[in-house]
Amino acid sequence: MSLRVSAVDGLPEIAPGDDLAALIARCGEELLAPGAVVAVAHKLVSKAEGRIVTLADVTPSPLATSLAEDRDDGDARHVQVIIDESEEIVRADRGILICRTRHGFVCANAGVDRSNAPDDAAILLPVDPDASARALRAELERLTSHAPLAVVVTDSFGRAWRRGQVDTAIGAAGIPEAVDHAGRSDRAGRPLVATLPALADEIAAAAGLVRGKASGDGVVVLTGLEHHVTADDGPGAAALIRPTGEDLFR
Amino acid sequence: MSLRVSAVDGLPEIAPGDDLAALIARCGEELLAPGAVVAVAHKLVSKAEGRIVTLADVTPSPLATSLAEDRDDGDARHVQVIIDESEEIVRADRGILICRTRHGFVCANAGVDRSNAPDDAAILLPVDPDASARALRAELERLTSHAPLAVVVTDSFGRAWRRGQVDTAIGAAGIPEAVDHAGRSDRAGRPLVATLPALADEIAAAAGLVRGKASGDGVVVLTGLEHHVTADDGPGAAALIRPTGEDLFR
Repeated sequence: MSLRVSAVDGLPEIAPGDDLAALIARCGEELLAPGAVVAVAHKLVSKAEGRIVTLADVTPSPLATSLAEDRDDGDARHVQVIIDESEEIVRADRGILICRTRHGFVCANAGVDRSNAPDDAAILLPVDPDASARALRAELERLTSHAPLAVVVTDSFGRAWRRGQVDTAIGAAGIPEAVDHAGRSDRAGRPLVATLPALADEIAAAAGLVRGKASGDGVVVLTGLEHHVTADDGPGAAALIRPTGEDLFR
Repeated sequence: MSLRVSAVDGLPEIAPGDDLAALIARCGEELLAPGAVVAVAHKLVSKAEGRIVTLADVTPSPLATSLAEDRDDGDARHVQVIIDESEEIVRADRGILICRTRHGFVCANAGVDRSNAPDDAAILLPVDPDASARALRAELERLTSHAPLAVVVTDSFGRAWRRGQVDTAIGAAGIPEAVDHAGRSDRAGRPLVATLPALADEIAAAAGLVRGKASGDGVVVLTGLEHHVTADDGPGAAALIRPTGEDLFR
């Protein structure tokens, strides 16, 4: 089995209201084919959807001002935006803010990022990244006539016990979030228990290998996963969020 | 930029003392070339290195017996092996054991696994997976004359706040564990802070996309990462372990 992972070249800087599907369809024309998986960095989606906050418009609360004191940039307005995007601050330590976002993702800064953002602005995660993935998928299928396609929306997440970040799925459509091996057996016939490869996350991570973080190259096409791509949208990346009742690390 | 990720076909079941490098060199002959990255599931390495415990030889302690009561298989001998491999039990809840291994990895069951293991046996992680990666790399380079090659040894790890598992690097040689963007800037010239893509983990995850967990197909070759492959072994995957002093989730 073999897989090809290719960056889409030539995408312009994305601005609010841009037709992201049309840009991907045009720049990715040679890579797209039925069964292809399109991994899109959330920043492109967020920018196209206008999920940008101008920091000059933000008035920080006393909590934001206090939390900002430990941070390198010391910008309380940025912290206020993080708080506004958070359901819960899971940890605040030495300037690091680990948040549970309104979607349920646990990540640094609630996904609010200033890299590759316009000056004095912060980029938020999409309101509903699975809905973004579904809409992008539908429009890409319509524009290219290459149905079925799958779309995965990604962000770089840190990990509790490991250094560095790995691109992770925050939205998905047309691909199962995970491959359920329950009921299958190993070579010796023993049941494969607790084996649920997080397909959408592995796709996001593979896409991360060919994306240039600095250049903002944000769209990657994976071919060779046709057997996973489905006609229906599927449950989305929300299905990868561990319910808080199962969470051992709050 | 484009990447190819290909499973190596035809590897036999591995047994203690098998020459894993020779088997990979032979079965992977058409895929290997200078600059290729070879991702190997740790189980093959562990089996070749004889890291197999026969459960009949294990006498469970009262702690192991107590912890086993909550587990599906209820096998206190398996739990004893997990305890023996652990530096610390980070969480024990409803039969789930999250452990810090002697290497410093935080993962379920200290990496001790019975799937794809011989009957009544458990497979342990390699004693030093970075050393395993270095040895495998040196032998593969010697056998194939395709220096430099890189080797990543992988295991499937769960994640604190996400369902499912993603293949993760537990050993590496010939490839940096991460790509340090410190000092680089985004398109707008703003410094890219806290951006450290965990290259070895993204390689492991990409390899996971083409490995059949049930079949035990354990070796994957990635081409297109030649620019990351180094003449020296580098720091290994141990450099991805977050020091306990920085750990917010013990």
